[in-house]
Amino acid sequence: MFEAAELGRTLDKEVFKKELPDLRADLLQIQQELLGCDFPVLVLISGVDGAGKGEMVNQLHEWMDPRHLETTAFDTPTDEEKERPHFWRYWRALPPKGKIGIHFSSWYSDPISSRVKGEMTDNDLEASLSRINTLEKMLVDDGVLLIKLWLHLGKKHYKDRIKSLAADPKTAWRVSQKNLDNIKVYDTFRQVAETTLQQTSTGQAPWIIVEGCDANYRSLTVGRLLRDMIRKRMDIDPKVLVSPAINWSSKSTDKTTLLDYVDLKKSLEKKEYNEQLAEHQAHLNELARKAHKNKVSVVMALEGWDAGGKGGMIRRIIHPLDARHYRVIPVAAPTDEEKARHYLWRFWRHLQRAGHMTIFDRTWYGRVLVERVEGYARDDEWIRAYQEINEFEEELTEHGIVLLKYWLHIDKEEQLARFKAREQISYKQHKITDEDYRNRERWDDYALAVADMVERTSTLHAPWYIIEGNDKKWARVRALQILCERLEKAL
Amino acid sequence: MFEAAELGRTLDKEVFKKELPDLRADLLQIQQELLGCDFPVLVLISGVDGAGKGEMVNQLHEWMDPRHLETTAFDTPTDEEKERPHFWRYWRALPPKGKIGIHFSSWYSDPISSRVKGEMTDNDLEASLSRINTLEKMLVDDGVLLIKLWLHLGKKHYKDRIKSLAADPKTAWRVSQKNLDNIKVYDTFRQVAETTLQQTSTGQAPWIIVEGCDANYRSLTVGRLLRDMIRKRMDIDPKVLVSPAINWSSKSTDKTTLLDYVDLKKSLEKKEYNEQLAEHQAHLNELARKAHKNKVSVVMALEGWDAGGKGGMIRRIIHPLDARHYRVIPVAAPTDEEKARHYLWRFWRHLQRAGHMTIFDRTWYGRVLVERVEGYARDDEWIRAYQEINEFEEELTEHGIVLLKYWLHIDKEEQLARFKAREQISYKQHKITDEDYRNRERWDDYALAVADMVERTSTLHAPWYIIEGNDKKWARVRALQILCERLEKAL
Repeated sequence: MFEAAELGRTLDKEVFKKELPDLRADLLQIQQELLGCDFPVLVLISGVDGAGKGEMVNQLHEWMDPRHLETTAFDTPTDEEKERPHFWRYWRALPPKGKIGIHFSSWYSDPISSRVKGEMTDNDLEASLSRINTLEKMLVDDGVLLIKLWLHLGKKHYKDRIKSLAADPKTAWRVSQKNLDNIKVYDTFRQVAETTLQQTSTGQAPWIIVEGCDANYRSLTVGRLLRDMIRKRMDIDPKVLVSPAINWSSKSTDKTTLLDYVDLKKSLEKKEYNEQLAEHQAHLNELARKAHKNKVSVVMALEGWDAGGKGGMIRRIIHPLDARHYRVIPVAAPTDEEKARHYLWRFWRHLQRAGHMTIFDRTWYGRVLVERVEGYARDDEWIRAYQEINEFEEELTEHGIVLLKYWLHIDKEEQLARFKAREQISYKQHKITDEDYRNRERWDDYALAVADMVERTSTLHAPWYIIEGNDKKWARVRALQILCERLEKAL
Repeated sequence: MFEAAELGRTLDKEVFKKELPDLRADLLQIQQELLGCDFPVLVLISGVDGAGKGEMVNQLHEWMDPRHLETTAFDTPTDEEKERPHFWRYWRALPPKGKIGIHFSSWYSDPISSRVKGEMTDNDLEASLSRINTLEKMLVDDGVLLIKLWLHLGKKHYKDRIKSLAADPKTAWRVSQKNLDNIKVYDTFRQVAETTLQQTSTGQAPWIIVEGCDANYRSLTVGRLLRDMIRKRMDIDPKVLVSPAINWSSKSTDKTTLLDYVDLKKSLEKKEYNEQLAEHQAHLNELARKAHKNKVSVVMALEGWDAGGKGGMIRRIIHPLDARHYRVIPVAAPTDEEKARHYLWRFWRHLQRAGHMTIFDRTWYGRVLVERVEGYARDDEWIRAYQEINEFEEELTEHGIVLLKYWLHIDKEEQLARFKAREQISYKQHKITDEDYRNRERWDDYALAVADMVERTSTLHAPWYIIEGNDKKWARVRALQILCERLEKAL
């Protein structure tokens, strides 16, 4: 794989000088056009030490408009980063539409270096790369132009480079003991890198290997690549990028869904309710304190029918909690900063530090519920969202976050009764709008969407809990009970 | 000051029960109305340990709609917080318009506890409080409803409370050794708190002291206070809030400004330029590496006439820098998340971690330049902005950030020549729009605004540098030279 990049390629200085002015003009022109485009460009820079990654990025910054180009270097994670799932810091640094982001030491650095050091087995590496493939697919599917550059050096050139850097007093500071040690493990490194590149060179986001021996050669090559790839992406009719939504077997032939089997008669007497509520709340108080102390986080995803009782349930759940340790995130229309990025970005950004509870009132499932039913998302978008969501949730649970997903279920009659009741109470009137009645008319479509959602996203680590909600008392106690059980198990 | 809050006030349980339902309905109603209002509510919670601050906040969360109420607790700063100026973490957590934010352990905690422990002198405390007053004035001037609550306990009640908490196995976990130690320093604490409250009880943001002995009393009192204060603020005609813009002596009688004294003939020969540029860039490379290593940050604020040469200057400055260690922030129209907060918020959010350089291409000075001249800001807004900006910059420099402010100056003829030249180069055409010509017509207004800006914001720690820009070569070398000098001094 690397053979072609170990030849010691150079570029004649005159050719470089001749080509550069046009290339720079092209790059500036493209950046300008990109500002009006509906996709971001994300460039990942990886490769062999000393292959000139840093110099190349510096070169790009100088050639291009640095106001629309942002490089993020990932080093040791900060404490705020460590307390969130692994990919959080990369999501945090995703460029918005119209801009170019460069990730220096990208999500490939950790797996490669861990494998080289023997901290990971081959299987660990494979699992890690498969996770990366899914993330990259998610981004590319959303329109991101992902350019993955590997700057390479053959063993001999690598050794020569490190030694010549070390010998020159002007550049000696750039050579660390780690660099010198790396010479010894070059062969292992090359082999791990080869495996990594092979497994992650996908049709949608292939690796591009550039030989790093010669500064002029690598800079001009990379500059041209960026120009041509961005240009090509701009010229593609956006419709072509949409993968056809095939193989989706609609359930519309069978009108019954799992929701029809929910026993909505479940209820609690007032006295029982009061007792059980108090008991569970007391228990939760204890568990939540322990969770905070042990830095165990909880993410609660609340979905349900309009007027299903989410608000009242949230109030009962937070009652025994310390307001400093939880946050309720209402999910409404995205802000423009959110609209400029993948739809999951706005959930990633709300993940809190270790030991905190985040309650999402409406969630990322909007993609496969309201956006599906109302046609805000294209078919291919909401269909692939199931896998994207599963992956997102796996990130959370793998990090040790206790993830709870509740569907608060009521039937159509109960909903109507609650709408009417709300209209009678002054401070609840705002909760009822024409839209609620409109959504109600599409009950069956929503029911189908809910059934599909539960079927496709109820996983071992993140199962759905359908809460019987016609009786609010039952629902609240049930929600608290599940929360306590899950927390107890996690602690 | 505290006498009235040391009486052991309680509230009859029956009264509490009777009043609560209406209060809750009112609070929910108000939150709903607030969503449509043009101001945020920020509640600071301070007070004596054990006065029920946590319980009170929990109570509010339960009574109100937790989706539009966010509590942030400030404990030991994270490493990301430590590497930014002191107030960064508070700015970071400011609520947007229409929402309520609670700051638990607010910006008062550090000064009070440091003074009690003797880590601060009285003068340190006074300086710190004066800084807080300025921050609060800035927020209130911007429309924030700032509610400062002090939950108090007299010495006897304090002792009793801590001891009774410690005695009950259910609450003993809440009592730390620190709480017990604090009993000994109660008198000192009370005295420091009294000084603090006296010095920061301003007309616009007075302290409200609530006795914390009795849970019902303090909750109902605080709930009512919030209700009444928010209601009152909503009922005020926004125009009344605008302080009249008096005492502003316009300079329009004297048409000459300091800009007329700038020697625009300064220039460099090509050869000299190349030599000096290379020399300063080499020097900067060295200094910047050292700055990164020593965690010294640089903030560069670039302002100047349209076509003044900011872009070319930025490229020469970043040439010797490592792209991982700087970021260029183009300042264009604010996003909606930015519009929902104080105008300085969008600059605070871009401050980077220690050891990085942030180059703002256009800055917070937009407030007193384009916003003043084009009338986007009211007179009272841009007039008070000078002081707000000075304060912001003092925050930066006090934290050890090297702050450079450049005004890139050219004359009217040079500007026209550059506009014409840009129109001839394909990838520069986008840089020239009708707006540029329109702005040009208001040259004199802008010149006056620039002169006022320099006069009022050139401070000892953050002086303005007027760069003679008719000759681009001169300007670039000059800018690099100043940067090197300032960095050298700081290292």
